[in-house]
Amino acid sequence: MTDRTLCWQPRVHRWDVQEIAFTLPVEGNPFERAIAAAFTGSGEQLTVPGFYDGDGRYMVRFMPAHEGEYRFRIPLPEGELGGSFTVLPAREGVHGPVQVYRQYHFAYADGTPYRPVGTTCYVWHLQGDEIFENTLRQLAASPFNKIRFCVFPKHYDYNHNEPFAYPFVQAEKKPGEAYAWDFTRFDPAYFRHLEKAILRLGELGIEADIIMLHPYDRWGFSRMDIRQMQRYFRYLISRIGAYRNVWWSLANEYDLMPLMVTDHWEALGQVIGQCDPYGRLTSIHNCFGFYDHTRPWITHCCLQRQDLYRTTELVDTWREQYGKPVIVDELGYEGNIQHGWGNLTGEEETRRFWEASIRGGYAGHGETYWSEDEILWWSHGNRLKGTSPARLQFLRTFLESLPGPLEPWRSNWDDRCACVPGDDENAPPVIVYYYSFMRPAFRDFTLPEGTAYRALVLDTWEMTTRDEGVKEGSFRMELTGKQYAAVCFWRVG
Amino acid sequence: MTDRTLCWQPRVHRWDVQEIAFTLPVEGNPFERAIAAAFTGSGEQLTVPGFYDGDGRYMVRFMPAHEGEYRFRIPLPEGELGGSFTVLPAREGVHGPVQVYRQYHFAYADGTPYRPVGTTCYVWHLQGDEIFENTLRQLAASPFNKIRFCVFPKHYDYNHNEPFAYPFVQAEKKPGEAYAWDFTRFDPAYFRHLEKAILRLGELGIEADIIMLHPYDRWGFSRMDIRQMQRYFRYLISRIGAYRNVWWSLANEYDLMPLMVTDHWEALGQVIGQCDPYGRLTSIHNCFGFYDHTRPWITHCCLQRQDLYRTTELVDTWREQYGKPVIVDELGYEGNIQHGWGNLTGEEETRRFWEASIRGGYAGHGETYWSEDEILWWSHGNRLKGTSPARLQFLRTFLESLPGPLEPWRSNWDDRCACVPGDDENAPPVIVYYYSFMRPAFRDFTLPEGTAYRALVLDTWEMTTRDEGVKEGSFRMELTGKQYAAVCFWRVG
Repeated sequence: MTDRTLCWQPRVHRWDVQEIAFTLPVEGNPFERAIAAAFTGSGEQLTVPGFYDGDGRYMVRFMPAHEGEYRFRIPLPEGELGGSFTVLPAREGVHGPVQVYRQYHFAYADGTPYRPVGTTCYVWHLQGDEIFENTLRQLAASPFNKIRFCVFPKHYDYNHNEPFAYPFVQAEKKPGEAYAWDFTRFDPAYFRHLEKAILRLGELGIEADIIMLHPYDRWGFSRMDIRQMQRYFRYLISRIGAYRNVWWSLANEYDLMPLMVTDHWEALGQVIGQCDPYGRLTSIHNCFGFYDHTRPWITHCCLQRQDLYRTTELVDTWREQYGKPVIVDELGYEGNIQHGWGNLTGEEETRRFWEASIRGGYAGHGETYWSEDEILWWSHGNRLKGTSPARLQFLRTFLESLPGPLEPWRSNWDDRCACVPGDDENAPPVIVYYYSFMRPAFRDFTLPEGTAYRALVLDTWEMTTRDEGVKEGSFRMELTGKQYAAVCFWRVG
Repeated sequence: MTDRTLCWQPRVHRWDVQEIAFTLPVEGNPFERAIAAAFTGSGEQLTVPGFYDGDGRYMVRFMPAHEGEYRFRIPLPEGELGGSFTVLPAREGVHGPVQVYRQYHFAYADGTPYRPVGTTCYVWHLQGDEIFENTLRQLAASPFNKIRFCVFPKHYDYNHNEPFAYPFVQAEKKPGEAYAWDFTRFDPAYFRHLEKAILRLGELGIEADIIMLHPYDRWGFSRMDIRQMQRYFRYLISRIGAYRNVWWSLANEYDLMPLMVTDHWEALGQVIGQCDPYGRLTSIHNCFGFYDHTRPWITHCCLQRQDLYRTTELVDTWREQYGKPVIVDELGYEGNIQHGWGNLTGEEETRRFWEASIRGGYAGHGETYWSEDEILWWSHGNRLKGTSPARLQFLRTFLESLPGPLEPWRSNWDDRCACVPGDDENAPPVIVYYYSFMRPAFRDFTLPEGTAYRALVLDTWEMTTRDEGVKEGSFRMELTGKQYAAVCFWRVG
C-alpha cells in the first residue's frame, strides 16, 4: 500500500479538524473523482466529502462534534481505506461552531452565548503577508468576532491588484482574452492560503463568514455557468466545511451577479445541503432587493440596508418577516470616501449597531477612510483608523454582560426598549432603553409593579456607565442630555 | 348720525389695513348681527365681513390690493353707510401678502420671493408683556420670517398658566365645572391683544401662521360644537383676515381634536372661503395621519413628520402626492426635554431644513431646552438658546441668493441634487448638492456638457463657503470631509 499512504491523527480535540490524507493514482481529471468518508462515533454518523489536493493526494476533513472513539471508512474501487481515532475534550476556549439559538440569536454548540459583532475586509487575505499579519494582529485587539471576506479576488475602486495565485488553473487564452480558466481544475495552493486565513481567524475566536461568489470581478469568476459554480461549491465546501468557524455566504450582492437567476441560487443552496454535513450557518447578501430569506437552506438574514436613512431601525420588521436572526452586515461604513455607503461618522456607525441590538438583531462594521496608499480596511484590512471599534467593544461587553439575548419589548415611539426575557413576562430580569440621536436630559420611567431594579445610565459614545441606585415604581431620572444614551435596569432580588 | 359715528382713514397704503368703525344701537346679542362692506377700487371689488368690537362699536377691516381711489358701502336697515379713500403706494418694505408661486413655492403679491423659514411659539403672546417684548426682539434678530401660534391658550407640559383674558365671555358655572363659556359672545380685548401680536410681527416682516384650533386644552375651547366653531371662525376671520401677514392654520394636530370629524373640518374650510375675500394661505396640521391636502381650500401642506427617522427626506414624495407647497412645520425641535420631538441637536434640526430645501420644500424650527423657569421657546417664546438659528440664517441667505426656488433635479442615491430651473433643462443656472450626515472627502462630478460653472463648497454647519473656481465637464473635487456639506454650481456666462 505504499502508493496509498494513509495519514491521520490518532487523537484530535472535539470541534477541531481530523485530516485524512491518502494518495491515489491519477487518471483523467483527478478533481472529478468523487471521494467520501463515513465517520462513526458514539454520538454521530456522518458522510463527509473529500477533495483532491494536488500531487496525487486526496483528503477528507472532518470535525467531530462529540468526544470518544470514532471510526472512518473510505470506500474506493482500489479497496476500502479506514481507521479509528479518539476525540478528546475541546481545547480551552473552543466552544464549537456557532448555531442559531432561540430563533433570532446565536450560540456556540456548547451553549456559550455568541453575540456577533462583525466586520468586513473583503480580500484582506490576498494583499500579501505583511497586510495579512497586520490584519490578524489588528483583529486580535478588536471587538470583532466575525469577519466577512471573499474566496475570489475583488475588482472595484481601490481594488486593482492581482492576487498571488488564482483559484482555477489557467487555460489557453483566445486572442483578446485577458484571462482564461479551466473551471474543472482548481489550484490547491490558492485554497490552502484561504484555509490558513480561516485557521488563523479560528485561533483568535473569529468566525469566518466566507463569501463564495461576488460580482466585483475582472477575471470571469462571476461568469461561471451554473454547473461550473456547483463544481466550485462542492470543492470549496469539501475543503473548508470542517473548520468550525466557517459560515457560508453564497454571495455578496447576489443580485448584481450577471448571469444568475433564482433557480441557480437555489441549486447552490442544495449543493451546500449535500456537501456540508454540519449545517453551517448559511446566508445570501443583497445589494438592492432582499433574497427570500424564508428559504429553508438559509439560516439567518445577512442584509445590506435598502434605505439611505433607515437601516438597522428596520431590524424588528425583518425579524418578523423572515422569522430568523438578522445581521445587517452592511449598514454603511465609517469613513470619508465619496460613496454614500462609505462615509459615515463613527457615531453613526455605532448608533446603527445599537439600533440593531435594541431590536433583537445584529450588525456589521466596516471602515473606508481614504488614504494615499489606497489600503482601506473594508477591502484590504491592515489597520483600523476609525472611532467606532472602541464603542463596538463597549457594546459587545455590554451585550455579553446580559443574562441572555435582547428581545424587543414595549417600545415607545420615541425610545426603543428591549429586555432579556425571564420567567415573569411583566418583570424581565433586564430592561434596556436606547435613545439614538435624541438627547433627553431626563425621562419619566415606570418600572414593572412591585419589582425593584438597579438603574444604570450608559453613554454609549463616551463609554461610561453611571449607577443610579435601586429604583421602583414611577420616577423621573436624569440622563446624559447627550446623543446615544441608553438606560439599563437590572432586576434586584 | 351721532349714534353711528363713522370713522375711517382718508388715505391708506396698499396692503395696509383700512379700518372702518361705526356705532349701532345694541339689541339682543350684538355679535350675532351680520355686517358686511362692499369695497370698489380700480382693480377689485370685494365684500368684506365686519364684526362687533364691544361698547356698541362695529368694525370692518379691509386690505386694498391696488392703488387708487376706493369707495365703500355698508348697507344697514338703519341706512347705508359709505365713503371713499385713497390707496397710496405700498410703504417701503411692504410687498403684500404671501401667495403660492410656481405650484410648490411662495412669493409676496408684488413678486418678491418668499422662502419660509418658520418657527413655532404656540402661545408666546399670552405670557405677559415682558416675554411678549422679548420674543419680538428675539425674532427681529432671528432668521425666522414666519411664526406658528395659537389663538387659544395651551394646556400641556410646561403650559399651566392662565391667560390674561379669555376669548369668550364666561357663563354661569354649573357645580363641578371649572370653566363655562357663552360661545356666542366674544371678549374683544382678547382678540385685540392677538391683533397687536399680528401687527407687531407684520412690522418685522414676519408672517403670522394662526392656529385657529388645537387639542391641548383644559378650558373647553377644543370641545365647541361645530356651529360654535363656525361662529368663532367667522368672528376671527372678520377681525384679523385683513392683516396681510395672516395665514390660516385650521388646527394644530387636527386629528387629536376630541369631537371633530372630517365633515366638520370641511365645514370650517368653507367658512374661510366665505369670510376671507383675500384667499389667505390655508393649511391644517396633523399629529398622526395627514389630512387630505388635495382639498381645494388647502393652499399648502403644513406637516408634522410621521416617522421618527425619516422626516423632511420625504418632502419630494409629499410634493408629488399633494401637488402643493410642502412645509414640514414640525420636524422635531432642538432641545433636551424628554419627549422625542423635543430633544434634537442643532445639527439635526439644521440638517432637516436642508433635506427639505434640497427637495423643493420648506421646514419649521422649534426649540425646547429645559430650564428651571419652564419657559421654552416652542411654547412661550422669550429667548432662543439653540445652535440652529444661526445656521438657518445661513440657509435662508443662501436660498435668497439664488435666482429662483429650488426644484429636485437628478439626484443620486447617496446625494440629493436640486436646481434652479432655467431656459435650458439640461444646464440649469444653479445646481446644488447636499450630503446630509455623510461626509465625503471628495466627489466626482459631471457638469452639463459644454457649460462652465463656478463651484462653491459649503459647510452648512460651520457656515463657510469656499470658491473652487470655474469647472467644466468631469472632475474630482475636494469637499469638506465633514457632515452637512453642500456644493453649489453657478452657471458662468
